[in-house]
Amino acid sequence: MVDASDRHRVVVVGGGFGGLFAARALGRAPVDVMLIDRTNHHLFQPLLYQVSTGVLSAGSIAPPLRHLLRKHKGTQVELAEVTGFDLEERTVQARRLDTTPLTFPYDTIIVSGGAGTSYFGHDEFAEHAPGMKTIDDALNLRRRIFSAFELAESESDPELKQAWMTFVVVGGGPTGVEIAGQIAELARRTLAGEFRTIDPAAATVLLFEGDDEILAKFGDRLSGRATTALEEKGVRVHPGTHVGGVDAHGVDVKTPDGEKRIPARTVVWGAGVQASPLARMLGEATGAEVDRAGRVAVAPDCTLPGHPEVFAIGDMMTLDRLPGVAEVAMQQGVYAARTIKRRVEGKGQLGPFRYRDLGSMAMIGKGHAVVSFKGIRLSGRLRFLTWMMVHLLFLTGFRNRVRAFFSWTNSFIRKGRAERTITTHAVSGVAFYTDEESVKTGAVLGDQRRGAASDNGS
Amino acid sequence: MVDASDRHRVVVVGGGFGGLFAARALGRAPVDVMLIDRTNHHLFQPLLYQVSTGVLSAGSIAPPLRHLLRKHKGTQVELAEVTGFDLEERTVQARRLDTTPLTFPYDTIIVSGGAGTSYFGHDEFAEHAPGMKTIDDALNLRRRIFSAFELAESESDPELKQAWMTFVVVGGGPTGVEIAGQIAELARRTLAGEFRTIDPAAATVLLFEGDDEILAKFGDRLSGRATTALEEKGVRVHPGTHVGGVDAHGVDVKTPDGEKRIPARTVVWGAGVQASPLARMLGEATGAEVDRAGRVAVAPDCTLPGHPEVFAIGDMMTLDRLPGVAEVAMQQGVYAARTIKRRVEGKGQLGPFRYRDLGSMAMIGKGHAVVSFKGIRLSGRLRFLTWMMVHLLFLTGFRNRVRAFFSWTNSFIRKGRAERTITTHAVSGVAFYTDEESVKTGAVLGDQRRGAASDNGS
Repeated sequence: MVDASDRHRVVVVGGGFGGLFAARALGRAPVDVMLIDRTNHHLFQPLLYQVSTGVLSAGSIAPPLRHLLRKHKGTQVELAEVTGFDLEERTVQARRLDTTPLTFPYDTIIVSGGAGTSYFGHDEFAEHAPGMKTIDDALNLRRRIFSAFELAESESDPELKQAWMTFVVVGGGPTGVEIAGQIAELARRTLAGEFRTIDPAAATVLLFEGDDEILAKFGDRLSGRATTALEEKGVRVHPGTHVGGVDAHGVDVKTPDGEKRIPARTVVWGAGVQASPLARMLGEATGAEVDRAGRVAVAPDCTLPGHPEVFAIGDMMTLDRLPGVAEVAMQQGVYAARTIKRRVEGKGQLGPFRYRDLGSMAMIGKGHAVVSFKGIRLSGRLRFLTWMMVHLLFLTGFRNRVRAFFSWTNSFIRKGRAERTITTHAVSGVAFYTDEESVKTGAVLGDQRRGAASDNGS
Repeated sequence: MVDASDRHRVVVVGGGFGGLFAARALGRAPVDVMLIDRTNHHLFQPLLYQVSTGVLSAGSIAPPLRHLLRKHKGTQVELAEVTGFDLEERTVQARRLDTTPLTFPYDTIIVSGGAGTSYFGHDEFAEHAPGMKTIDDALNLRRRIFSAFELAESESDPELKQAWMTFVVVGGGPTGVEIAGQIAELARRTLAGEFRTIDPAAATVLLFEGDDEILAKFGDRLSGRATTALEEKGVRVHPGTHVGGVDAHGVDVKTPDGEKRIPARTVVWGAGVQASPLARMLGEATGAEVDRAGRVAVAPDCTLPGHPEVFAIGDMMTLDRLPGVAEVAMQQGVYAARTIKRRVEGKGQLGPFRYRDLGSMAMIGKGHAVVSFKGIRLSGRLRFLTWMMVHLLFLTGFRNRVRAFFSWTNSFIRKGRAERTITTHAVSGVAFYTDEESVKTGAVLGDQRRGAASDNGS
């Protein structure tokens, strides 16, 4: 019998795809696990755009971490924000919701801090162009989208009316494509007949992509098909267009034809990612390289130089040009857990981490998705079913699967959206529950969106 | 043919039970209707406590007003806060989300401003003891309840741990009884097995009521049964107990045995209501009396003295000691609409408003409700089904009915709660969507809770 206090202590930072899969894989190992996240939930980030457009409720895609891990009696879950590491003393410093400082000792640590939104040095855009990484991002965007139609309805100035009816999505990766498609469907289907001074179907949805094509990673053919499908839904796709400025009244863009000002009151930022600041902390503590996106370079076994007891996984690390997708984080989480188990059991070292690519998918709108898997590239209506299956299979927990299915059926078949409540975010008296924007992300199995993989306890 | 611009213009202030039923009843009349509310949704307030305890999502009980009224083509819905009336000019002043002032001319106005939380002159309690009147209240409380268990889990000081595990509910009316019952069930059922340093079932749930018994309006027998049922669930019921102070660390109470300090980090205020400030404005403009609860006295036809074109209905008015319940507001809304139709059609005046009492119900917890209807008083497990039926029948919109049913089945049968996501209320950049706490309320058909009837556009 092993005394509990003698057991190997593993601290997992972040409850996203990387951290959650690591904790699960360690569930039956003879180790004590402490999972720290600054939110109380795992986030199924690939469906975040459906929360922001009123299809799904927050709870449908954000199950509590301690509920997911309740059967692993050797696992504790802690709601706290990690603020630093002491790699010599082997402790993690963190801060509770009420700012009380906490210290967690470890024998091995798995850091899966994920990535947040990057504005490429223009953090002033954030105020006017929220990212799409956290539940709070999604609820913020939901409030903005539905409020924009309300304000368009009551606006008497035709130019302002048009600005409220203009939605700009920055970034033509899967996130941008999915959110643009959903806003167009919302305007043309869900809101039809509900307004008196505007026609929601006349809303302008603009998708700006700096590259020459959207969904570049899916290849030319799918990019073209996705563009056609989006245009049919009413999204105007503008590749080769850079956004140089964002303020409360619109965006400034540089197109192949010159510079332009687009009046628009609702802007979504899906363009860039920046690794969790925890990556830089680990880089500075160990001398590991940190790249421009803030990611720390790890060894082939996902550990840091000179610190075999420190794993960094998912979106916050670089290794062999692996894509920043959920599947990498998941597989690295399981790999780290297996490595720890072998060490505790005194077995030999595993081989280096190998990524198994399971393909990519993006949903363009009702009944239309594009899929890329091992060179096979598909698009069309049947892909929708595939997409739905994949999403359902990977939603964590049966109830959430059924609930999500129910809401989707509703939305897609009956064109309704149940989650349109605009909340006002009263903040009086909840100061200590208030937090800065989370840095939290994730992506569907094999999704190729960059930097949309894991989670963050920082 | 009547020219649209010549049509009688009705402005309805507030989309709660009173305003919504008035607008619906006017839907096919030859009048133009403008419904103004400061939120975008109707609120099914009787189920608010289920939102705050994670059973239902916000969207399940708060359907958009313009969706509910989409088929009435002569009806417009405006998201704005009413700031004043000019009864001479016959205009309503309001303010949009982005603070733009708006003016609405009317021929007849129906004001259904509802009631908000009253702290009986101690508004400083609000910061520590949120009320239960709006969706934002419920989401605020949800965040506090789930965060309290998280903080108890990581707290090392035993006294503070106990304070995080102590939940105080002030007020033994239906709202207080329902929320206390739900918190106890959450602690004992939903959270079982999910924590490592605390036993959620050891949480202390205290229900304080100033009167000699809870649910006083239901009569002695039901009050006793409700007390027994609550105690069995783990709620400690303290009648004859007045709350004299609330701060961040606990409450001060005066009991029959003397004064006491109760350390508690989570306090819910379900004790008092105060009519919308619109009631006082109307009283001052017309000379009508305004009582201590801020309600304006109306004539037997629900209009104000000297202003047959101004109706005040629901929780913000007094008439013949009618209870402040949803059913009064609904029936008055329909009455006002019928009166307007008869006037427009040149028919004679209706008789005075008569209230048809359809009984009261309160849900104590899983499988237990108390019902009072025309002197018949029932309690027990079968009442649960009755309660569920009544709630379902009056949830507005089929989809919401089915969704709510689905979530309840889940919660009651599988003991799960899907909506446990703690959101952080990031406020950067959404200043103009932020609003003061809404004053919005409602109640189940015939529910006897005081002042829990209609809605607010103020």
